[in-house]
Amino acid sequence: MPKIVDHDERRRELAQAALTVIGRSGLEAATIRAVAEESGWSTGVLKHYYADKDALLRATLREMERANMARFDAAQQQPNAFDAIAAIVTEILAADAAEARLWIAFTARASTDPEIAGLMRHAIDVWVTRWAALVRRGQSDGSIRADLDAEQVAGEIHALVNGLRLRHQFRPTPGNPVLLEHLRTR
Amino acid sequence: MPKIVDHDERRRELAQAALTVIGRSGLEAATIRAVAEESGWSTGVLKHYYADKDALLRATLREMERANMARFDAAQQQPNAFDAIAAIVTEILAADAAEARLWIAFTARASTDPEIAGLMRHAIDVWVTRWAALVRRGQSDGSIRADLDAEQVAGEIHALVNGLRLRHQFRPTPGNPVLLEHLRTR
Repeated sequence: MPKIVDHDERRRELAQAALTVIGRSGLEAATIRAVAEESGWSTGVLKHYYADKDALLRATLREMERANMARFDAAQQQPNAFDAIAAIVTEILAADAAEARLWIAFTARASTDPEIAGLMRHAIDVWVTRWAALVRRGQSDGSIRADLDAEQVAGEIHALVNGLRLRHQFRPTPGNPVLLEHLRTR
Repeated sequence: MPKIVDHDERRRELAQAALTVIGRSGLEAATIRAVAEESGWSTGVLKHYYADKDALLRATLREMERANMARFDAAQQQPNAFDAIAAIVTEILAADAAEARLWIAFTARASTDPEIAGLMRHAIDVWVTRWAALVRRGQSDGSIRADLDAEQVAGEIHALVNGLRLRHQFRPTPGNPVLLEHLRTR
């Protein structure tokens, strides 16, 4: 029997290794060699899946987005949409620094790299669309104020969470944001 | 009469030129040569004031903080502290992209440069202290809810504004954040 390799699995495993390296030592440290070492595979294997560092970093961004999608899915269990938003925010803020570092590094590069800027724009749109859908659901299930503009609030939730994640790299941020309480029906 | 040079003035003028270059083309573009050209002074003059690019960037960060301090001072004119906070937020969000780019570039570098991390930590502390003082003033003048923890809310205002500024580089952000309404007394 030929050996069966799950290429998608391998790709994700390598992207995860990149995320680990970035979390520990920053974006500059995530060289092909360092990521190969972290993953336990050779640089040859890594280069088979990712042509260069940029391709690897893009995959790492997608891997991070996948983790966030899973957080949204898990929060569907909450009794209402307000609680779901609070639960997702808690999870994001509890995640380790690697995600925030990756995100800030991409944001910094986006100012001079139009392709990265496009990726970031897309990632932001996906986030805001998801938050807006949850806000609308909360406006239906009665947990979120009906008079709020779902799109605007969604953008602000996204901004607040990112701002807190970034700040968290320098100073601990205490607990869940109280500003989100503004969403609650009274 | 000897020519009188206001060295502080000249230093600030050069830091302003750096801010302009960063806003237009990103941090990497802010070389000694490019900033000299923008300022109209020679690279020799620039090097007289700033030993290297790092010294210039640190001064640029301070220059940006000075602009923000002026926004706080101007907002003292508002009838109450809630309105003052709203006015400062409006001004920050209306500022051009250079400040946000500079901030994100420093944040990105902070993950591998302890000196930059120290500067950022200090800058964040100054911000949060100022916001907290305003929140407390609002709790005294009756414009802000007395039941809120001033320090926590201050950190969230800071995070929200930074998150919105960063997002603004990719997508326009509509108007002032409605989440701040949570602060208002009812």
